[in-house]
Amino acid sequence: MKDERHEKGWKKFQEIHGPVAKATVESLKDISPELGRFVTEFAFGDIYSRPGLDLKTRQMLTIASLVTLGNAPLQLKSHIKGALNVGVTKQQIVEVILQMAVYAGFPAAMNAMYAAKEVFKDRERRKGSSKSAVRSSK
Amino acid sequence: MKDERHEKGWKKFQEIHGPVAKATVESLKDISPELGRFVTEFAFGDIYSRPGLDLKTRQMLTIASLVTLGNAPLQLKSHIKGALNVGVTKQQIVEVILQMAVYAGFPAAMNAMYAAKEVFKDRERRKGSSKSAVRSSK
Amino acid sequence: MKDERHEKGWKKFQEIHGPVAKATVESLKDISPELGRFVTEFAFGDIYSRPGLDLKTRQMLTIASLVTLGNAPLQLKSHIKGALNVGVTKQQIVEVILQMAVYAGFPAAMNAMYAAKEVFKDRERRKGSSKSAVRSSK
Amino acid sequence: MKDERHEKGWKKFQEIHGPVAKATVESLKDISPELGRFVTEFAFGDIYSRPGLDLKTRQMLTIASLVTLGNAPLQLKSHIKGALNVGVTKQQIVEVILQMAVYAGFPAAMNAMYAAKEVFKDRERRKGSSKSAVRSSK
Amino acid sequence: MKDERHEKGWKKFQEIHGPVAKATVESLKDISPELGRFVTEFAFGDIYSRPGLDLKTRQMLTIASLVTLGNAPLQLKSHIKGALNVGVTKQQIVEVILQMAVYAGFPAAMNAMYAAKEVFKDRERRKGSSKSAVRSSK
Amino acid sequence: MKDERHEKGWKKFQEIHGPVAKATVESLKDISPELGRFVTEFAFGDIYSRPGLDLKTRQMLTIASLVTLGNAPLQLKSHIKGALNVGVTKQQIVEVILQMAVYAGFPAAMNAMYAAKEVFKDRERRKGSSKSAVRSSK
Repeated sequence: MKDERHEKGWKKFQEIHGPVAKATVESLKDISPELGRFVTEFAFGDIYSRPGLDLKTRQMLTIASLVTLGNAPLQLKSHIKGALNVGVTKQQIVEVILQMAVYAGFPAAMNAMYAAKEVFKDRERRKGSSKSAVRSSK
Repeated sequence: MKDERHEKGWKKFQEIHGPVAKATVESLKDISPELGRFVTEFAFGDIYSRPGLDLKTRQMLTIASLVTLGNAPLQLKSHIKGALNVGVTKQQIVEVILQMAVYAGFPAAMNAMYAAKEVFKDRERRKGSSKSAVRSSK
Repeated sequence: MKDERHEKGWKKFQEIHGPVAKATVESLKDISPELGRFVTEFAFGDIYSRPGLDLKTRQMLTIASLVTLGNAPLQLKSHIKGALNVGVTKQQIVEVILQMAVYAGFPAAMNAMYAAKEVFKDRERRKGSSKSAVRSSK
Repeated sequence: MKDERHEKGWKKFQEIHGPVAKATVESLKDISPELGRFVTEFAFGDIYSRPGLDLKTRQMLTIASLVTLGNAPLQLKSHIKGALNVGVTKQQIVEVILQMAVYAGFPAAMNAMYAAKEVFKDRERRKGSSKSAVRSSK
Repeated sequence: MKDERHEKGWKKFQEIHGPVAKATVESLKDISPELGRFVTEFAFGDIYSRPGLDLKTRQMLTIASLVTLGNAPLQLKSHIKGALNVGVTKQQIVEVILQMAVYAGFPAAMNAMYAAKEVFKDRERRKGSSKSAVRSSK
Repeated sequence: MKDERHEKGWKKFQEIHGPVAKATVESLKDISPELGRFVTEFAFGDIYSRPGLDLKTRQMLTIASLVTLGNAPLQLKSHIKGALNVGVTKQQIVEVILQMAVYAGFPAAMNAMYAAKEVFKDRERRKGSSKSAVRSSK
């Protein structure tokens, strides 16, 4: 049964975060493999795998929470990427962050906006470089 | 122009919170009417009136933020009611709160769940009493 | 396997919190039974059941965390009781709270001390009343 | 020397909080007299007794911090009273709270405003009743 | 009227932050120009432009809030600079941060002190280099 | 008497943090020597020097608090080192951090685990280099 939870979680983890899922679990391997397991099984297996809310909404909710916390820029960027991966648009991400100014204050919103800017730029650059890779491979 | 922002915000404030909108502004009148004005104009006029996200999503995001803050039970309950008002289902509200356990911890999620329970019960009671009012008026 | 995690967690939950364990799960039954299940399985099954730290230390750590959060008085009181249940002394609980003044500030420490005071008084009263119950039953 | 720090702190504590100083220290006596001592000696003896900022400014800063924390309503009310005691005006307190909406968000500002409203009302009532006491004693 | 609010806010923004005002708004232009607009209009137009508190006090309050939040070092540094710009002395800034140790804890106070140290050093260096620039231009 | 508190605190500060104690006080010298003094006298003299809890437990409690705060990575790393210095094992530190996932959420726990990983690696490296230094000095 553990295996079922784990498998379900692992699939969801990868669906949202792509290769970052594996990198995250790997990064915890030598210090606390159980934390990687708990993230996989509890966060992604028990929570994100639930029906009731689609993944786009779930990613936006997570961004809202991380903007409000204001102290986890690594996870915020990672979930902004995850949001883009499951089809949330850039404009929607900007809207989520803007709304948080009301509840978490302007510094939280501004720092989150700068984080989103970095993620978006990084995506553009990769797209650009893969396009030119395509071009130069012709 | 201030009047336009104000009107737009006031309309949105009432659309989400119903008679609570007026009660909120009234409750601030003798201490800081400008805070009531800023809530109306900035929160509801500038932010909630933006397109890009529907009101249901906005209310869920606000609940996510308030669960994460963990220190504004009054506003949390008020926005759970607001969420119900604009069509978010009870089950969706429960899902939002459950997901927050991952980011804000279990105490935040549990206290939010108790808050939701109170709001839901209160709604049931009112419905019940209005039904019996209907019945007894027959 | 789920049953094993659940059973292990449920046993630990009761070992620490006594009859409050059941009351907590019951209180969530009609709104979100899964939250009660997650608390039981993840918090108490996955975490508190781990070796490596004895229960006294774990309860003191939880108190430290809840004092620092500062926004979950219900859980703080519940874990102060839990700490007493597993053998942490009143003086040790006071020490934990005092130390938090350094990291979480004085308001957090003072509010936690008032919470501890309430819990301790309540215990005294119960002991007192059970003693007089014993006496009057003679 | 401890006595000197203690005395200096105790004087400052009373200057700001009046009879609440004694009540606070008393309320901690049976659970943790050292916390009362640390508040007196460190907070009021080491910090508030420093030159460099006048007491009015210090009280406004403390209110700003407590509004931002958002989880210590008891201390917030107590320091709003303290601010009034040392000559900060009601309007200045309202301004401090309003400004915090920008940094700590609207829920924090609104709850603080309601706390201020309670304190102000309570003052009015006492003044009113002491006036009528004066009148009736004539 | 929007233009009036905007203009008023923009003037105040520049009065406090100098060329950083423009840099901030520019940095948000390609991701969320409305966030730059809201900062200008709400934070600086609606709040900082209010009478009732002088700018020195307002900057000290903002520093108090940002030290307490503890998760916005960028904004903290920016407002320490802003405080110096409007005439708050270095010693007063140090006093504000010291006082926050009581409410937000020592880690928050220490990190803020290190941030202030950086800002002060940077100022010294610039003054130094502009002096030597003057000298070498002779 | 101040000297006694200071001496007691300074001894405890060094016992836990080794040469970092001096470095910390030095780093504050030119901006706020009093903050270094307060840390020494209040945190280490008044609090850590108290009996009632051994230093290992105190360091674990501090780690719990700093993981929960989530915004003081510098102090978190410093206290993880301090914990190792007074005999807390790596596995115990990992356990403390794991437990915090329940109360402070997964992002807080993950960032703390990465911080611990860095500290542990750094220790290994130093041990390794001192061993090879021993070897090469033979």
